Amino acid sequence: MMSDGAKSTVAAAGKTMSPITFYFDFTSPYAYLGACRIDDLARLYDRDVDWRPMLLGVIFRQTSTAPLFEQPLKGDYAMQDLHRCARALGVPINLPDPMPFSSVPAARAFLWMKDRDDALARRVGRAYFDAAFGAGRDISSPETVVEIATEHGVDGSALLSALGEDEIKARLRTEVEAAISAGVFGAPFFVVDGEPFWGADRMDHLERWLASGGW
Amino acid sequence: MMSDGAKSTVAAAGKTMSPITFYFDFTSPYAYLGACRIDDLARLYDRDVDWRPMLLGVIFRQTSTAPLFEQPLKGDYAMQDLHRCARALGVPINLPDPMPFSSVPAARAFLWMKDRDDALARRVGRAYFDAAFGAGRDISSPETVVEIATEHGVDGSALLSALGEDEIKARLRTEVEAAISAGVFGAPFFVVDGEPFWGADRMDHLERWLASGGW
Repeated sequence: MMSDGAKSTVAAAGKTMSPITFYFDFTSPYAYLGACRIDDLARLYDRDVDWRPMLLGVIFRQTSTAPLFEQPLKGDYAMQDLHRCARALGVPINLPDPMPFSSVPAARAFLWMKDRDDALARRVGRAYFDAAFGAGRDISSPETVVEIATEHGVDGSALLSALGEDEIKARLRTEVEAAISAGVFGAPFFVVDGEPFWGADRMDHLERWLASGGW
Repeated sequence: MMSDGAKSTVAAAGKTMSPITFYFDFTSPYAYLGACRIDDLARLYDRDVDWRPMLLGVIFRQTSTAPLFEQPLKGDYAMQDLHRCARALGVPINLPDPMPFSSVPAARAFLWMKDRDDALARRVGRAYFDAAFGAGRDISSPETVVEIATEHGVDGSALLSALGEDEIKARLRTEVEAAISAGVFGAPFFVVDGEPFWGADRMDHLERWLASGGW
């Protein structure tokens, strides 16, 4: 954590403030809830958002965690909770079938776009989330991932061929390892000024942090 | 869930509305945060609270869940989160050493008092939580549990001898089984009008439910 003095200096510097790191997996409906809010929230406090895709499956294998919706009792409850959270937030929620699905193509596509145009990647990333959990669409295939990207002006054939190459596979592996190194164990996971916030339900604490420079 | 018509009827009936069931374990600091708020929250919406102690250790063994603070990564994060939650709520937080501790004597004492005077049991229950997590006091021994109860006017020698009897042991086992049957998998856990809310961080949803009769 920074000292109060350091925080004030950063706050006074405006746009030079460090971005909010937003770790997510396109297969997480709670990350969808986070994605619906994080850019607007950051803008209010003059922060950028660094969207960082990762793979919960890899992290859960390392931490011996079962996927939420597969856990006895908690899984059924989480489904009920998820719908309440979406209603409270005023966003549509429809789960694709099957769940969980592979988010590897979407994550790779996101990184390929991010390395070329960060703002575009975020728009398409938001579109992936909206398709998967707003409309309940299966976005697990490379073809669907490319189709949605082209609707936002991305060169579909370049993206499709990139998805099969070793370079983007290695890029995603590196991202997942970076998330693990950063202590990420679930999604959405936010880090701001070195302070971690886990869960769409901690965005009120995140906002409080942004508003006060830590409290 | 009830129909809208049934909810309106219940809402109109005032004090005959069903109580909020509050499942807790005296060893859970998040349950402490819940205990700090639940009675005031319920009063706002003209509801009673049924305080129901249980043992997370038994439930976690059945659901193969590790205690939160012993989980890799998540445990360290939870400690940070817990302190932020307490600061946001404006309540003191100090953890006893050792953690987790046995809450069996406190739970048995609570039930013994509850069967005699529900309001008194709740006052002492709140005092147990405040001692354990407000003051960081070790409340794991029958002697400490009795001492705190006597400060609230409980007959200490009657309570102390009751704590060793089979009757109260069976009473707590029945409570734990009832919690498991109700689908409780963590603490605090609230049920109102058949709707479950898990976590001190879902009390905003619980309040929304109370205010609207479901939403």
